[in-house]
Amino acid sequence: MATLDDVLARADHNLDHSLDRLFELLRIPSISTDPAHAPECRRAAQWLVAELAALGFDSGLRDTTGHPMVVGHRAGPKGAPHVLFYGHYDVQPPDPLEKWQTPPFEPVRRTDSDGMERIYARGASDDKGQLMTFVEASRAYVEAAGELPVSVTVLIEGEEESGSPSLGPFLDAHRGELKADIALVCDTGMVDKATPVVTTRLRGLVHEEVTVTGPSIDLHSGMYGGPAINPIKVLARIIADLTDAEGRVTLPGFYDEVRDLSPEIRRQWAALSFDERKFLEKVGLKRSAGEEGFTVLEQIWARPTAEINGIIGGYTGPGTKTVIPSQASAKFSFRLVADQNPDRIRESFRAFVHARLPEGASVSFGQIHGASPAVHIPEGNRFLGAARQALENEWHKAPVLLGSGGSIPIVGNFQKVLGMDSLMIGFALDDDAIHSPNEKYDLSSFHKGIRSWIRVLSALASER
Amino acid sequence: MATLDDVLARADHNLDHSLDRLFELLRIPSISTDPAHAPECRRAAQWLVAELAALGFDSGLRDTTGHPMVVGHRAGPKGAPHVLFYGHYDVQPPDPLEKWQTPPFEPVRRTDSDGMERIYARGASDDKGQLMTFVEASRAYVEAAGELPVSVTVLIEGEEESGSPSLGPFLDAHRGELKADIALVCDTGMVDKATPVVTTRLRGLVHEEVTVTGPSIDLHSGMYGGPAINPIKVLARIIADLTDAEGRVTLPGFYDEVRDLSPEIRRQWAALSFDERKFLEKVGLKRSAGEEGFTVLEQIWARPTAEINGIIGGYTGPGTKTVIPSQASAKFSFRLVADQNPDRIRESFRAFVHARLPEGASVSFGQIHGASPAVHIPEGNRFLGAARQALENEWHKAPVLLGSGGSIPIVGNFQKVLGMDSLMIGFALDDDAIHSPNEKYDLSSFHKGIRSWIRVLSALASER
Repeated sequence: MATLDDVLARADHNLDHSLDRLFELLRIPSISTDPAHAPECRRAAQWLVAELAALGFDSGLRDTTGHPMVVGHRAGPKGAPHVLFYGHYDVQPPDPLEKWQTPPFEPVRRTDSDGMERIYARGASDDKGQLMTFVEASRAYVEAAGELPVSVTVLIEGEEESGSPSLGPFLDAHRGELKADIALVCDTGMVDKATPVVTTRLRGLVHEEVTVTGPSIDLHSGMYGGPAINPIKVLARIIADLTDAEGRVTLPGFYDEVRDLSPEIRRQWAALSFDERKFLEKVGLKRSAGEEGFTVLEQIWARPTAEINGIIGGYTGPGTKTVIPSQASAKFSFRLVADQNPDRIRESFRAFVHARLPEGASVSFGQIHGASPAVHIPEGNRFLGAARQALENEWHKAPVLLGSGGSIPIVGNFQKVLGMDSLMIGFALDDDAIHSPNEKYDLSSFHKGIRSWIRVLSALASER
Repeated sequence: MATLDDVLARADHNLDHSLDRLFELLRIPSISTDPAHAPECRRAAQWLVAELAALGFDSGLRDTTGHPMVVGHRAGPKGAPHVLFYGHYDVQPPDPLEKWQTPPFEPVRRTDSDGMERIYARGASDDKGQLMTFVEASRAYVEAAGELPVSVTVLIEGEEESGSPSLGPFLDAHRGELKADIALVCDTGMVDKATPVVTTRLRGLVHEEVTVTGPSIDLHSGMYGGPAINPIKVLARIIADLTDAEGRVTLPGFYDEVRDLSPEIRRQWAALSFDERKFLEKVGLKRSAGEEGFTVLEQIWARPTAEINGIIGGYTGPGTKTVIPSQASAKFSFRLVADQNPDRIRESFRAFVHARLPEGASVSFGQIHGASPAVHIPEGNRFLGAARQALENEWHKAPVLLGSGGSIPIVGNFQKVLGMDSLMIGFALDDDAIHSPNEKYDLSSFHKGIRSWIRVLSALASER
């Protein structure tokens, strides 16, 4: 029977061929946001279906109202855990084309002046390079051991770069087929090229659009200025009241479910030697306007916020117009952290708004554009424990458990629709230039990424 | 020699043709605040120059750095008083277009369900309909009597709806040409459709446009939400702080020069039996949001305000965008009452804004769109006495002396630059929807307005 080392040796042996296959996928310009590229998206999906079939997966292309899904299943030993691997084959548009040193869909392997070998192409990192680390890990297992150590379902979508509109309905329609013990999501990064990461926190998101109506028609500010309710003032009062002088959100109950960070995680994050000043300076800011008593990383990864994403009311053209508008609107969003209930936050916000309406004013709330709770994989999760050890064995360094201030809708959907936690493990680096010209993926990310998944699959196999 | 009755009869006879001419003017979309409409403003001015020339005025178009002025002179009998008539040919933007029942620049004459005939168009009341009452009164005089009873200078500007920036410099440069014994300004209204008015008080106006910059670029609210300054929040704080819970403006020194109303004026205004509830209800409001301790009329005619006329920032399209914008802007305006100094108010406001900027945010103030002090015409003025009697003869009801919440910068300028008082006589009604969709002017306002000016000119002729 093949040992773990045999499988790893097989992956090392395969590396050049693994790269050849990645390059084939990178040559397909599967830009999901551009309808003209729909046939290329389909071609990328078909290519993956064939690759998985060659590895013994029962694989197929599944049509949606948008770009197709790739789904594949390969059973592991009886009683072994079942994992769902997620990635996406679609890429961002390559514009501006003139800034690429080599054409975006003609991948090259290049040794840069720092001595590092890198793969340059649109999608090299996000997410073709990343998803192929898992496919190639599976190949090494199948070739060296004749089977995978766990049951694997692969789900690769083609709409991640355009909002994943088909994903929720697809999960919903195939709950039975897609539910697994744990999801593995390969679309995140590392701290630096030597330090692996498991991302265990994502903030959730609640959107609200508020329209305040004062007078029934726009009024002349001379004729009515004084007695008339100005809806811009009402909205400004709501916005101003929403955050206190210490940067805390004032919604009643907002922090009731927010947990303090464990001392271990605070220590880990402090040890990242993240440069707050530089992070703020590069976007023209001098100091954090966030909640007092927290570092910038804590503010982004572990604290909830209330933001206003847009506001409009009255006359906004050139020059002046002496109007008291009938209406003013603002788009609010709340980033949530673990255990905050999106519905309760929405309810509290709406009560907060109503409490600030003067007599005679009214409010309407816009269409609800979804709400996602935060994601937090508890540090005691057994699969997380197994993955941490596996990554440490490969990188000779304990992985850091990070947060991300943004949302990855798929992870929220796995939790909400399938009741399944996700381990977010990826090998991207901050300088990969995803979504930008000259996107790249370090060869070491690709190679050690493959080796990492082999170790993770092996470790998860013991968690039966 | 023609009698006053002959002139009035001529005006009655002319009415349909007078309307045709008004409609020609209403069809020109002379929106002064929108640079794209500059040619239309010029076209309206040229149209008026030609009309005045046809009436025997020595008329011409005078260029300014903004929209042109129309100036015309026609001498009356030797020794007769000299009046300066003022109106404006520019109009407010018609937005929101979809709320108009008929297109704003295609005037219609319509009998409404209450049996009243009305003229519907942008500018029907403010100020094209009003200024044409004087032009048509002059026509009736010239046609019936062969001359005007007083010397008349006509001054019609095209920037009233955008702060009249060229007017002060123009008056200053043409003091000799424009100085008269009294100015007649037709841009105000009546108590109701049976009760004429001479307006003796106008509020002043200061505009400010404030743009707050937080981060140097738009940010992702997941990646930066928390630490990043949100300029919408900064602006909301400024707006919210500007008015206290009693409806008072909180700018330091704002009320220092504001005088209490005399008990006599308070009594006069209380006697108008103005229906506050109705006034508010017809624009969908339940109670006054103005300064506590004052009636609605006092709030509008004799108390200063701070308003926000427009606000914009961030994403305002359909759906959501998780952005923290780099900038947000708002248009502020302050209505002033007699003795408040516009420059001091502006200075106080700018200091107020700076005091509320968090470290790392910056502010810029827009181009200054003019500022005007408030106006108060003494009640002992002899021309005022003559005009009151003339109006009583037409309407069979003594005119009341009112205030107006709006600003007519020209009146302040006539007082300041030319040392000349103004009689503000106009025939607009509260429900004319000026600055709103479906602006209208009652046919009776137009017709009896023409007749009123004939009587006023006749009465002023005896004040030599």
